Amino acid sequence: MTALYDVAAIGNAIVDVIATADDAFLTAEGLAKGAMTLIDEARAHQLYGRMGAGIETSGGSAGNTVAGVASFGGRGAFIGKVAADPLGEVFAHDMTALGAHFATPALARGPATGRCLINVTPDGERTMCTFLGASGELGPEDVAVEVVEGAAILYLEGYLFDPPRARRAFAKAAGLARGAGRLIALTLSDAFVVERHRAALLGFIEGQVDILFANEAEIGALFQTADFEAAATAAVGLARIAALTRGEWGSVVLAGAARHEVAAEPVQKVVDTTGAGDQYAAGFLVGLARGRPLDACGRMGSLAAAEVISHYGPRPRASLAALMRPSAA
Amino acid sequence: MTALYDVAAIGNAIVDVIATADDAFLTAEGLAKGAMTLIDEARAHQLYGRMGAGIETSGGSAGNTVAGVASFGGRGAFIGKVAADPLGEVFAHDMTALGAHFATPALARGPATGRCLINVTPDGERTMCTFLGASGELGPEDVAVEVVEGAAILYLEGYLFDPPRARRAFAKAAGLARGAGRLIALTLSDAFVVERHRAALLGFIEGQVDILFANEAEIGALFQTADFEAAATAAVGLARIAALTRGEWGSVVLAGAARHEVAAEPVQKVVDTTGAGDQYAAGFLVGLARGRPLDACGRMGSLAAAEVISHYGPRPRASLAALMRPSAA
Repeated sequence: MTALYDVAAIGNAIVDVIATADDAFLTAEGLAKGAMTLIDEARAHQLYGRMGAGIETSGGSAGNTVAGVASFGGRGAFIGKVAADPLGEVFAHDMTALGAHFATPALARGPATGRCLINVTPDGERTMCTFLGASGELGPEDVAVEVVEGAAILYLEGYLFDPPRARRAFAKAAGLARGAGRLIALTLSDAFVVERHRAALLGFIEGQVDILFANEAEIGALFQTADFEAAATAAVGLARIAALTRGEWGSVVLAGAARHEVAAEPVQKVVDTTGAGDQYAAGFLVGLARGRPLDACGRMGSLAAAEVISHYGPRPRASLAALMRPSAA
Repeated sequence: MTALYDVAAIGNAIVDVIATADDAFLTAEGLAKGAMTLIDEARAHQLYGRMGAGIETSGGSAGNTVAGVASFGGRGAFIGKVAADPLGEVFAHDMTALGAHFATPALARGPATGRCLINVTPDGERTMCTFLGASGELGPEDVAVEVVEGAAILYLEGYLFDPPRARRAFAKAAGLARGAGRLIALTLSDAFVVERHRAALLGFIEGQVDILFANEAEIGALFQTADFEAAATAAVGLARIAALTRGEWGSVVLAGAARHEVAAEPVQKVVDTTGAGDQYAAGFLVGLARGRPLDACGRMGSLAAAEVISHYGPRPRASLAALMRPSAA
């Protein structure tokens, strides 16, 4: 069956609140630098009150990836839960404005649209505190059959292992994609997420995942090792393709015995690393959906990651399709 | 009396929604490039639906100026009306997070927090459509006596001539400031605003205004002339000080017979001109409150304007106080 979409992604539908902070602020607030911590509404209110002036922008890991897919000129679809409130409208507007398909019904009663409070330190590192809100209410009923079956690649974020009902949405989506002969990709999202759900993730990857995305900390947490090479070998033993990102050192793409070292795209100044992994996945998946070789997929990932870390915000500002054209190089 | 604040500003409390657009979009939507158009809620909804994905950030002309004052390390206070809704919370949070005083009670019933839909074209020019919402409900009861009397300079935005009750807030604030022996500054805001309220503005400036801010189009509209020199002469005949901005050509500061030509601060790339005039006013007013000579005030204005046009969003990202230090030059 021809694919309606290059990538259909399922993830937490989140609006980001981005402010700058110094390391002392992270220490004072007891925040683990670079990590994502789940917080409740009361803590979100308290922390927001202590943060600096911010900008608000649609975010969410898989949502950012769909935005990147659209920026490459790819066809993306997103499944995630917002509330019927102003931030939910912003999220839906932005997704639709990108040309992506987004039709998950907004939550009529219950928590507000989820927010991620992001403090960016002068080194460009982002430290995230997420109040899941409505996004945690995503359930199997939200997994639109025609969207998942109609996408060349189903992309899932590890963050969805936290909200209990989302796990069932995962299972339904993976079953549909598998049944339709589609590829399934997963990002581990965060080392703490991996620690919390290690056994379940290992089982899911072994049984269902074709393409695994992870950074060094995440893949190390999954296989309980600080030895990157050992973790990489273990990863490609579970998934068909492993795309492992190493920050400024680029990425390693493994598939069976094949191994590609992909350099990071140079950037003038790292402003805000939010969305780097999400955009790497976007470039990689667009390449894969277009039948590009794996090293080219990795380079498309590097290109997208470099664009997004050179400014505030988790989604591309420049057209990634234009950046891909040799004339723009 | 010693001043509690360097600058107290009264203006529309607005959250900006910033997206990029091409000139064809402006034409298709019938928008006057570079201008501010007032729109109702229905049109705001329609236009937002057609705009690209955006970022949301606190804005409003005078609010942006207070943010700039705070960024210079000055003491700022803002008076303006938001609704008791999430965007109103964002506006209040950002103002307070900057260290500025903001205590205007939120509107409990009535329209939502005001929004300005800003389309930025590739040349960096911004075209704004404002749904005033709650900000149009500002009235004299919101003018806090101790704030206005306690500020060295009262700063008013011409945009407030549009909402009818805000005109009375203007009159009250000007009377209080005059009575307390404070300075009164006014920005004309927009050439169309000037066209709509020309006679009232002329009367207000002649009777009450010490420092008048305007760009070329605005001062030309006020005196119905395309001759900048004629307009400049007329301006300084009405106000004690006229600070007239000319985009990339810098500004002209006039006071009686004195005239200072101030160069624009060079910028690598103009990304988004939103807030350029607001930040010029911030720098100028901080300088004035600190007793700096007028040409130095103009240079502080140029510095602040250059910072804000080099990125998206109407408020400084870098510390303007740090940019002022010679070591940072």
